[in-house]
Amino acid sequence: MTKFDEATQAIRVDETTYDVCLDDGYAIGGPLNGGYLMAVMLRAVADASPHAHPVSTSAQFLRAPAPGPARVRLERLKTGRTATMTRATLVRDGERYIDMQVTSADLDGDAAPHWSATPEISMPDLADCVRFPSPKPESNMTLSAQIELLFDPSSIGWLRGAPSGRPESRAYFRMAEPQDPDPYVLALAVDALPPVVFSAGARGWAPTVELTWHLRALPAPGWLTLLGSGRLISDGWFDEEVEVWDSAGRLVAQSRQLARVGRG
Amino acid sequence: MTKFDEATQAIRVDETTYDVCLDDGYAIGGPLNGGYLMAVMLRAVADASPHAHPVSTSAQFLRAPAPGPARVRLERLKTGRTATMTRATLVRDGERYIDMQVTSADLDGDAAPHWSATPEISMPDLADCVRFPSPKPESNMTLSAQIELLFDPSSIGWLRGAPSGRPESRAYFRMAEPQDPDPYVLALAVDALPPVVFSAGARGWAPTVELTWHLRALPAPGWLTLLGSGRLISDGWFDEEVEVWDSAGRLVAQSRQLARVGRG
Repeated sequence: MTKFDEATQAIRVDETTYDVCLDDGYAIGGPLNGGYLMAVMLRAVADASPHAHPVSTSAQFLRAPAPGPARVRLERLKTGRTATMTRATLVRDGERYIDMQVTSADLDGDAAPHWSATPEISMPDLADCVRFPSPKPESNMTLSAQIELLFDPSSIGWLRGAPSGRPESRAYFRMAEPQDPDPYVLALAVDALPPVVFSAGARGWAPTVELTWHLRALPAPGWLTLLGSGRLISDGWFDEEVEVWDSAGRLVAQSRQLARVGRG
Repeated sequence: MTKFDEATQAIRVDETTYDVCLDDGYAIGGPLNGGYLMAVMLRAVADASPHAHPVSTSAQFLRAPAPGPARVRLERLKTGRTATMTRATLVRDGERYIDMQVTSADLDGDAAPHWSATPEISMPDLADCVRFPSPKPESNMTLSAQIELLFDPSSIGWLRGAPSGRPESRAYFRMAEPQDPDPYVLALAVDALPPVVFSAGARGWAPTVELTWHLRALPAPGWLTLLGSGRLISDGWFDEEVEVWDSAGRLVAQSRQLARVGRG
């Protein structure tokens, strides 16, 4: 079992209740990463569902939970032949932190697409991509030790004070501890990039209000490619889309989040 | 009050309960249109929220409700300074039909975007766009009498047996009864196009499993432009993205839905 598998474990208490322990190794400057929290909750959903794969997940981020023990409460909304629909809530001491709607189904790992788009932008070779400088311990960016991100240099000009002027963020991604990507790794991946607004000149903590992602195929082993972009920054709000492509060139996940522009 | 305003009315019973009457004038071949149902539910959410505008709506479609009386049950998840988060459920006789997560906030009608994308495809002039043939009464496509859709001819080749081969659907949109677009009209608009998979050769009822849409700005009066596309058709599932642009050239709504490919 990898550290990530352990940090996302959900222990069944009864049919609708799972115990989890939120790991302080997934912090992004204080709060825990939203993708990590979704992965934890999806473990509980998958364990309780007759269908294996979370094909659609919509999360509303109500409050940022601190690390430590918490519970996932499940409510089965529908059990169909093709799909199961579940509501999952992350709770602690009677307070709700995340409210999530999940549709589970069984994906066929060998399905050939009927039709597929191609990536809208091509990534430089891995060898031409760059890592972030290691974060200072006091920044509490513990997530950065769990994952490897190799950035398209043109999308992180903001690091050297030269933002591109448009919302974008692109990188190759894999877990630091060797682990083949699976749906839980993808939940982490869709929220692993620095906010796309940084390259449009914004700074500071950009809290996600809502994130929906769809699992479109089971990922092949190897690096994932994360292509992040946005369509509008207005009135304090921005959208961030992330497409995840696997090493076999297949679109395996799509996400969109609505978030607040930071005031940093 | 327009027919649409009347058909989407939600009457307050108490703090968490609203009576609604689902109108058979919004059917799409039997089932009621998902956008119409979201508009009905959003009326209840908005009435009960201290924030005016549904900036984020995620709907899980559990079952297709028949026309007639129903109830919307609300659960307030969070009341913040910037936003209110609510869960809304459409129920009848103790059965749940749609489960929805909504974030409400106050949008500034005069906000100038900090950054905006431009449409990825340009529409032909209105005069060069085409209407669908009127549906036969037995098809029960009553929605088509409520709205005007003027299609980009290149996106509806499938009507004449010449699909373009890729998922797409584009049209100008307005209500048949004169009415300025508002957030409820936008809820209808994001689900008003024929499924994008029709142009990729698919047929038949394509049930939406999950639809998330974001209200990004308050729309100007006049025609809306709906740009629909998709990224992947695989394993019986497809995604459909719709961008809604207003007559002032602003991106006012973004949606993505995950749906099943029909077997028609």
